[in-house]
Order: sequence, then C-alpha cells, then structure tokens
Amino acid sequence: MTIKVYDLCGADDRRFSPFCWRVRMALAHKGLEAEFVPMRFTEKHKISFANSKTVPVLADGDTAMNQSWDIADYLEQAYPDTPSLFGGDAGHAVTGFINAWTNSTLHPALIRCVIADVFDRIDDTDKAYFREDREKRFGKTIEELRGEQSSALGTLDDALTPLRTILTSEEWIAGDAPAFADYLIFSAFQWCRIMSPAELIKPDDPIHGWRERLLDLFGGLGRVFKAAT
Amino acid sequence: MTIKVYDLCGADDRRFSPFCWRVRMALAHKGLEAEFVPMRFTEKHKISFANSKTVPVLADGDTAMNQSWDIADYLEQAYPDTPSLFGGDAGHAVTGFINAWTNSTLHPALIRCVIADVFDRIDDTDKAYFREDREKRFGKTIEELRGEQSSALGTLDDALTPLRTILTSEEWIAGDAPAFADYLIFSAFQWCRIMSPAELIKPDDPIHGWRERLLDLFGGLGRVFKAAT
Repeated sequence: MTIKVYDLCGADDRRFSPFCWRVRMALAHKGLEAEFVPMRFTEKHKISFANSKTVPVLADGDTAMNQSWDIADYLEQAYPDTPSLFGGDAGHAVTGFINAWTNSTLHPALIRCVIADVFDRIDDTDKAYFREDREKRFGKTIEELRGEQSSALGTLDDALTPLRTILTSEEWIAGDAPAFADYLIFSAFQWCRIMSPAELIKPDDPIHGWRERLLDLFGGLGRVFKAAT
Repeated sequence: MTIKVYDLCGADDRRFSPFCWRVRMALAHKGLEAEFVPMRFTEKHKISFANSKTVPVLADGDTAMNQSWDIADYLEQAYPDTPSLFGGDAGHAVTGFINAWTNSTLHPALIRCVIADVFDRIDDTDKAYFREDREKRFGKTIEELRGEQSSALGTLDDALTPLRTILTSEEWIAGDAPAFADYLIFSAFQWCRIMSPAELIKPDDPIHGWRERLLDLFGGLGRVFKAAT
C-alpha cells in the first residue's frame, strides 16, 4: 500500500510547508515511494481522519500520524533496512537540538523576512484566513511586515551564525553524508525559496553552497517545485 | 606520563574558563587522570611552549595542543577504549553544530549577563588587562555593562529556547547518557556559576534540573569549585 503524505499547497501548486519538506526529504533519503496529496489551509477536512489540524500527515497502511519529527522516528523504526536518518542514538538525540533550534530560532527569523511574499503566493481562497491568523500572531499588518523585510534580513543573518560556522568546515551538518539534521534546516530554506524572491543567503556564504548541494540530492528533488520570482 | 591541562584561574583559585571546563568534563567522562595547572590571563608565558596564547592547552607526552574541540577529538582518537564523547561519526558532526551554537549564540548572550561580576572576581593582577580588552570589545565600560544586566538576562532567556525545548523531553542533550554535547553547554554555565551570583535559570526551568544532574556527575566534579556569592 502506498504511503500518502498530506502536503500544504499554495497557488500554482507551490508546496511550501517546511514541515512537509522534512518528510519529503526523509522519504527520499530512505528510498520510499509516496503519494503527496495537496491541501490548502482551508481544506483541513482532508486530514481530519488523522485527528490532525496540521500537515504533514502521513498515512501508511493502518498508521496515520502528524508532526514531522514523529514521522521521521516512525520511518526510522518501520523501515530499518533503509539508510538511517540519524546515524544511531547519539545522532538522534543531538539532531533533536537542531530540530528545536530550527523551530525556535530559525523559523521565527525567516518568517519575518518572507511573510508578505508568502501571502502573495498562497491560494486566493486562503488569503483571508492567513491574513487574520498571521496579523493576530504578529500584532502587525501584512503591509507593516512587508516594510520591515530589510531589518528582518539583518536579524536573520545573525541567527544563521552557528549554521554558517559549521558549514565553513563541514560539507554536511550530519557529517560525511546528509541526513535529517540537514533536511530540518534545508526545509526551512525551501519554504522561503518557493514563496519568496528575497535573497536570504549571498552566493559567497557557505550556507549557499550547502543549500545547492541539497537541491541536487535525489535527482534534484528540491528543484521540482520552482523558485519564486 | 600524566596529562597536563593549563587552566584559566581567577582570584581565590576560581577556575572559570568555559573552554577549560569542556576539557575537564571530557577527561572525567573518559576516566583519564590529569593535572590542572592554573594560569592567569597575564601569565601566557606558561603556555608559550605550545605556541598558544589561549587556554586550555593540553600536554600529553609529546603532544601539545589548544582548542577544546580539537582536544576532545584528540582524546577520542588517542584513548579509543574509553567511553565515547560523541557516540560515533553522526553524533560527532551534529555535536559540531552545538559547538558552533554555544560559541556564537550562547556565550555572547551569557557574557553580557555576567561580565561585571567576572571582572569583580578575576585576580587583581589581571584587572587592567581585562578592563582594557573587554571595554574595547564591547565599546562600553564595565560599569555600563553592569547597568545592562537586567536586559541582558531577558535576551539570554530567548537564546535558551532551543536548549529548554530539548530538555523538556530529554534528560541529556546527547540522549540516554551525557556526552560532549552536554559538556559544551554545561561548561558555559560553569563559567557563570563560578564568577557570578546572578540567577540565570529559574528553579522550575528544565535547564535547571539538567544543570544539577551535570553538577552531580563524576562525584560532583562541577561543585568542586564553589559557586559565586
């Protein structure tokens, strides 16, 4: 039975959820086929079968679950003969720190750089929902947030320092080969790449080369959905 | 031949260098005996034999080296039959990200909370050096930095979010047992604990319990040098 993943979808079939990208990369890493089912913000009935209001939702036979971290754990245990996402217990635990850093430091810094661009590229049917939800969350209008993009890019640059530092000496965050630690952070950049034309990373930044290497993985999977222009 | 570690020393034999604490914890983790040689900021002639101007310096037989990360790598390779600091290649690489986060995010956030307290507790012979060096680095006087402690504590609280998040569900950063990922961050808190009475972490914060567990390790090694009052 084919694995199904419910995947957030913007206008023009843009698949921009960073949490869904984590699962897409994890499945590719393990060489597992999956059907990705598009879902708009306002189509949450599609995932009610999993008692979830958020994507990704993974359905695999009788198993249905959300939360990208739990899905990665599930795939690691359910498909033990495929390449590991964590490289063992120690790698798993420390990757948990990178997960927490990505969620609590990187995502908040990125969203302020791209939120107005994301608004421009979500499906029209989602715009009222998105505006109300995000304006309440930030206490600012989308237009005010658009005006703050330049200062947000400066804040992002500081937040990226640990990533930049490690990539000065390492090709991948996970060591000799990419693994879930890389996909966690890459997926955040995919969200921005697909929804915003902003130049978040300069070409001479070691993060830029690392992202290019990740875009090339699995036959160029990361480039299947076009970058925003 | 006994391993020697050259170790920064404040007034009243306070051993406060976070980088030296990393090595102290790594040696204890591996069950290796070592002699710790105290050195003040203004006694750099003691480590010139290693072509170093910074501590820790480790001398082991014919090997002399500085940089806590390189020393951990050296110990891991030179003493392969002792408990691993990284739990394999994947753990090593991802711990590198935690090293970068500690150096580039945690240390700058902590130093602004405790710098004036550190100044009060370094050896008198080091005070002129420390004041000149640090005031130049921060572009502010020690007294101005003392006045900013309260706002610095708020900034620190934000910076600690990824650490707090992971410790909500995990006992140790490195997984089932503590390892170098834990010592990297713990050592930063030791620097503060020994040099500042500031309450950086509230007792109900999961970081607090984790730090207590680390203080208890290796027969209470972390408590051998008294906390600042």
